[in-house]
Parts: sequence; structure tokens; C-alpha cells
Amino acid sequence: MLAEIITIGDEILIGQIVDTNSAWIARELNNIGVRVKQISSVSDDREHILKALAEAHHRANIILITGGLGPTKDDITKKTLAEYFNVGFVESDEALVNVEQIFKKYNRPLLDVNKLQAQVPANCEVILNKNGTAPGMWFDHDGRIYISMPGVPFEMMYMMEDTVLPKLKTSFDLPHIIHKTILTVGEGESFLAQRIEDIEDSLPSHIKLAYLPKLGQVRLRLSAYGTDEAALTDEVNRYAQKISERVANVVAAHEDLPLEKVILDKMAVKGFTLSVAESCTGGYISHLFTQHAGSSAVFLGGAVSYSYELKESILGVKNETLWQTGAVSQETVKEMVEGAILNFKSDYAIAVTGVAGPGGGSEDKPVGTVWIAVASVNKTVTKKFTFGSKRAQNIERTAISALGMLNTLLAEVEN
Amino acid sequence: MLAEIITIGDEILIGQIVDTNSAWIARELNNIGVRVKQISSVSDDREHILKALAEAHHRANIILITGGLGPTKDDITKKTLAEYFNVGFVESDEALVNVEQIFKKYNRPLLDVNKLQAQVPANCEVILNKNGTAPGMWFDHDGRIYISMPGVPFEMMYMMEDTVLPKLKTSFDLPHIIHKTILTVGEGESFLAQRIEDIEDSLPSHIKLAYLPKLGQVRLRLSAYGTDEAALTDEVNRYAQKISERVANVVAAHEDLPLEKVILDKMAVKGFTLSVAESCTGGYISHLFTQHAGSSAVFLGGAVSYSYELKESILGVKNETLWQTGAVSQETVKEMVEGAILNFKSDYAIAVTGVAGPGGGSEDKPVGTVWIAVASVNKTVTKKFTFGSKRAQNIERTAISALGMLNTLLAEVEN
Repeated sequence: MLAEIITIGDEILIGQIVDTNSAWIARELNNIGVRVKQISSVSDDREHILKALAEAHHRANIILITGGLGPTKDDITKKTLAEYFNVGFVESDEALVNVEQIFKKYNRPLLDVNKLQAQVPANCEVILNKNGTAPGMWFDHDGRIYISMPGVPFEMMYMMEDTVLPKLKTSFDLPHIIHKTILTVGEGESFLAQRIEDIEDSLPSHIKLAYLPKLGQVRLRLSAYGTDEAALTDEVNRYAQKISERVANVVAAHEDLPLEKVILDKMAVKGFTLSVAESCTGGYISHLFTQHAGSSAVFLGGAVSYSYELKESILGVKNETLWQTGAVSQETVKEMVEGAILNFKSDYAIAVTGVAGPGGGSEDKPVGTVWIAVASVNKTVTKKFTFGSKRAQNIERTAISALGMLNTLLAEVEN
Repeated sequence: MLAEIITIGDEILIGQIVDTNSAWIARELNNIGVRVKQISSVSDDREHILKALAEAHHRANIILITGGLGPTKDDITKKTLAEYFNVGFVESDEALVNVEQIFKKYNRPLLDVNKLQAQVPANCEVILNKNGTAPGMWFDHDGRIYISMPGVPFEMMYMMEDTVLPKLKTSFDLPHIIHKTILTVGEGESFLAQRIEDIEDSLPSHIKLAYLPKLGQVRLRLSAYGTDEAALTDEVNRYAQKISERVANVVAAHEDLPLEKVILDKMAVKGFTLSVAESCTGGYISHLFTQHAGSSAVFLGGAVSYSYELKESILGVKNETLWQTGAVSQETVKEMVEGAILNFKSDYAIAVTGVAGPGGGSEDKPVGTVWIAVASVNKTVTKKFTFGSKRAQNIERTAISALGMLNTLLAEVEN
């Protein structure tokens, strides 16, 4: 079963907002066995919308449309849909009651322009909008399902969860899609591909392997399409296991999780705690951990020690170390990580110090020079990296490399 | 001049990643006077890509394609482009040297599959990829420009900034677009709109005003289209000044800068220093500041004090305060911010503590309860906020609110 998502609105096309709705919708559809064939973002323009609908009609069975349902003049989705289906408008009692209730709740006078929101194309079934005044619309036309929803994320999400997904499940006999992801760290895409080439070549045509690389990590994702869910799951797991065994030395997780979450989960199981001493990443590593719910069970916190003074006062780095070897040195990063373990009383710690750039580089230590240390109570590992000239990337690469090093140190304990 | 963006890759269509590239590209194109007509996301599928290219050809003058350029089998953009243009492959010396240099730098053996990355369709001009092995490609075909770039954001961004945007500017006679942005903090969109309604109504048709709201901030962006750059600039500046004067009490900057950068710049001029004590934001505020080059002149660092112990040991919060009033209280946040000023020896400090969720809430302090403090050496301001139930939003709202409070405190000093 194929779907197409059409997002309507100039704000996406001028780059004012990032379209996060489509990824969410795509994920939800995938989970019920509907494959998204294309996502198109078009402007609030009658002809352009009509064209997009006609094209989608040829590609997909289910067409989901978001945006352009507001009460103002620039929102033309509803009237364009009526034109596309060649029908007139009717007033929906259900939608009108909803609009009235919302205005009553917020104690605002009901304007004529708001009453108009209850007018819908004659051939639609209304999808109730519990979080806003614009009704969603379900059309069954010429062998295709068209679904129009507001662009406001939480209004759309509510409609999808409450009405659209359940209704799609009962309307179609959907196939199963099984995804299985293996997270690898520390080996490039092409090297991985070489190592598992024969396994990849042996995959049946209904199972696809994708390489999803991201700064020092590669996700290997197997996707299988079919009707027998149990058999599919079994089949995918078997191939996943073959791959995992082959590249076992770089596998960090058998789920689609970010590396820092994998680390938090591993550490939580063992009751380990973690602290950080961040210089050049300036809080980014802490942020990666603390964005995850439940991180406080493992992550105690740490220091963002940008200045020499804070490296000394919070972390106990020796004054002579800083002045003799500089803030970006093996000696300093070692004292930082060991200071974190000692002062923050954690089982493990990460420390990073480097020249993120664009300024601050020298001949000895050009922009992109970074020292990273990870430590347990018994062992400290330090490593020097030479990244590039871009600040944001240096921060990101430093963080990912530090996570990779901590993951390796944790694996040593496991074995 | 119209452009279309085609993103290629199953990872977008299954919702595994959010397409942030398109919004970035659209914004950059807009800045040089190119309008994006449509954004399409299609799968790694030969026929589908061919169809998308042919459709885009009818709609746009410039077609920008991202993704599908990796060395592995699932990446088929390059070969599909060669088929679309009906040309063979040639080896690009420039691209080969680049691949060789990258492998040499990282001291990895060059595989045949990597050498293949230097093979490009015969009709293309290579766009150098300084950050990766896949070359970008520029095609001039049948009155249209086609540009193929990797999907990895920083590889794509580098190519756009270094080659594509300058080359588009010289290839086409583009109209001038002048943007002027005013950053306001602390007043809602509709209230601002009411205050400047008459100025907005007096704008000539070639100048547009957009309201760009984002969590407690609204950017007012004037955009002018025309041929005489100097006259346009002059005209836009005059309207911008009118607006700035009208809403002077909420204007934080007359440039399109993030609030934390505005704060860093203001503080740098005065020689002020800043430290932070972060609990529920877990490093995110530090990260906001330190992502900006030169932040070390102002930002000394601080503590990510997730645990009670670290609040005591690094910040000097009293044990009895924590046990009597809890970690999320006015007393604790006050001691945190004053501890930061004292221990980190900064002129200003920010402290935040709250229940980010989804766990950890109580009847007294439900998820979303946050205390924020900002302080100078002489003055401490504390404020309680009640946000929602989503962790990521609570972290973001807390950070933005803290920046707003610091900006207000700094403004008091100025006046």
C-alpha cells in the first residue's frame, strides 16, 4: 500500500520552518504497513495544489495533505480540494458544534469567519479536531483515499492517532513492514559494506539493507515487506544476527537508538554513574545525555570549564600543568577526567579539551586539535584527534568520538 | 527564478530522519533571489528518481538534488543522473585527488569502491567536497541547471556556500532581495501586529513583513524585492527604523541573530563575564552560548549539577535548603545563581532548576515546573514557570526564558 504526503504552505518553501510533520506521519504509516512513496511540499497556490493532487493520484493509494486549513485568506486547501473533486460545500453539524465549543471554552465571540470553518466539501467525512477549529477531512474518491489535516503538529497528530490510523487499518488489508537496525561505531560505510558484502548479496528481494552514516557511526537497517509478520520478523532477525556476528567488534546496539542513549541504558543496568568535564564541547555532551528521560539515574552532571580558572577550581587541574602544557594537552585532559571522577564521585567520566575554532589555533595546535579522555576509577584512556576548521562540526565530532571511546571502555568491562 | 529541491533517500520516507537540509537550502536560495517552487522527497529507486527529475524540469529553472551519493549499493543517484542525461562516466582527476587525500589524512587504505567515487557523469562539472569523498556535480542541461550534492548536511552546506550559491549568482541575472530582521523578546505575535498595524498597512507592495515567532521571541522580517539595491536597502532601513522605534521596549537586536549571540555581543562590548548553573537544562544553555565563535571572551563555563551532591559541592547550595525546599524551589535556584557568581567569579550568572519530565513530577511540583534565576553581582531575579509535559520542549523553553531574563537584566544596566 503506497501513500504520498503533500504539505501545503509557503513557510516550508522559504525555509522558515522545518517540516517535522512528514517524518512523523511517515513513521506512523510505516508502523501499520503503509509505505510512503513521495513527500511533496507545495505553495499556497491553487494550480500548484491541483497539480500535486493529480500527480499523487497516479503514484499512491492514500494521499495525506497537511496545511492550508486556517481561517485566513491565504489558506486555500479546502476550496481547492472541492474544486479538485468537483463538489460544492455543506455545513457539517459536527464541525460547527466543535468550533462553538472551542470559542465558548476560551470565552471569545464567534466570528462569521470562524463559522465558515464548519463548511466542508460535500463528499467528505469530517475528522474531528479536538485541538483546533479546522476540521480534518477524509475523502474516498476514484479508488484513492485523500486525507486533509491542519499543519499544526499537535492537531494533526491527534487526528492521526485518534481517527486516521485506525480507519486506514480497517479500510485496507495492509502488509507488514519489519525494520531492524544495528548501530555500529568506529568503522566507515565502505569498510562495513566490504565486510558484509556476501550477506548483503544473499538477501531475498523483499529484504533491503540500508547504510545510514553519521559522523563516525553507521546504522545498518534491514527492512522487510510481506504478509506473515512472524515469519518476516524471524527472517530479518536471522540476517541481522549474521551481520552482527560478522562485524561484532563495532556493534554498539541492536536497536535504533542514539549512541548516548545506548550508553545510558548499559550503565543504568550495571548501576554505574557518569560525570563530564567539557571544555571545547561547552555543554553539548551533557545536553546529549540529559535530553533523554531517566538520564539522571546515571548522569550526575559535570563541569563546563571554558576558562583556566574553572579547570583548576572545579576539576583540580594543576596550575603548572595548564601553564606548562596548555589547556589542550594530554596532561590537562588526563587531569580533567581524573578530577571529574574524584570531585564528582562518579564511576566513569568523560573529559574533552580542544580548539573548536575558528580562532584560537596555533602552529602547534591548529584549529580542530582535540584531546579526549575517558576514565573509570581504575583506568584512563586519552586520545588526540585532528578535526577540521568548522566550529559546529568540531563540537559534534568531539562529542561523538568521546561517546565512542566511552562505549569501548564500557565494552572492556563487559568482556 | 524558480528552483526545486529533490531529496533522495528512503530514510526520509520512512521517517527515520527529519529533512532539515531543504529548509536550509530554501533559506539560502531565497537570500540570493531564487524562489523554491516545490520540495520533493523520493526513494532510492531508479524510476522514481527519473520521474521526479522530469517533473522538476517542467517546473523549475534550477533543480537541486541531495542524497544518494554514498559508495554503497543503495546509493544510486549518480548512475540515475547519467541515465537521465544519457551520458557515460569519466574519472575526475580533481575528485580522485580529493578522495586520495582524505584517505591519506585518516591513514586508511583506499578501496576500489572509494576510487569509484571519482567517476562522474561525462557532462558534469565537479563541485569539490572538502568534507567527504563524494563529489558534488553541476549539470547545465536543456536550459536547466541540475546540482547534485551529498545528503550529509555539513558536506552539502560547504558546497552550497563555497561553490553553488556564488556560481548561481554569476550564472543568472537575479533580482535583489533585501532582508532586514528585528528580534523582539517577550511580546506575542498578535500584540506586536496590533502595535505596528498602520506601519504594516503603509508598506509598498514590493516590501513584505513576516512575523516569525519562536517560543517567547518574534522576529519581524522585512523583505524587499527589486533591481536597485542601494535604493531598496535605504527604503527597508527606513521602515525597519519606524517599527523599531514603535516597539522599542521589546527590541533585542536589529539583526537576525539568535538571542544568546545578541547577549554575548552586548556583554563582550562591556567586558562582562558570564557563568551558568544548569540543572534541568542539563548543558543546553552552555551549548547555546559556546556554539558561537568567540564566546570564551564572555562565557567562563559553569556547572551541570544534576545531582544534589553536585549542587552542594560545586555551587555551594546548602544541604538544608535542598532538603527543606527541594531541588526545584526559589531558595535553591537563588543559592545556585549566587553560588555561580561567587565560585566561578563571573559578573553575571544564570541558574535553572526544574522538572523536565516525563518522570519526577509531584502534586506540588508537576512536570514542567521550572525556577529560573539571573543575577549580577548586585542583584538577583528569580521567576517560576509552568511549562508543559514534553521534556525536549521544557528544556528549550527554560533556556529561552532564561536568556530573556538575562537580556532584561542587562538592559537595566544599560539604561
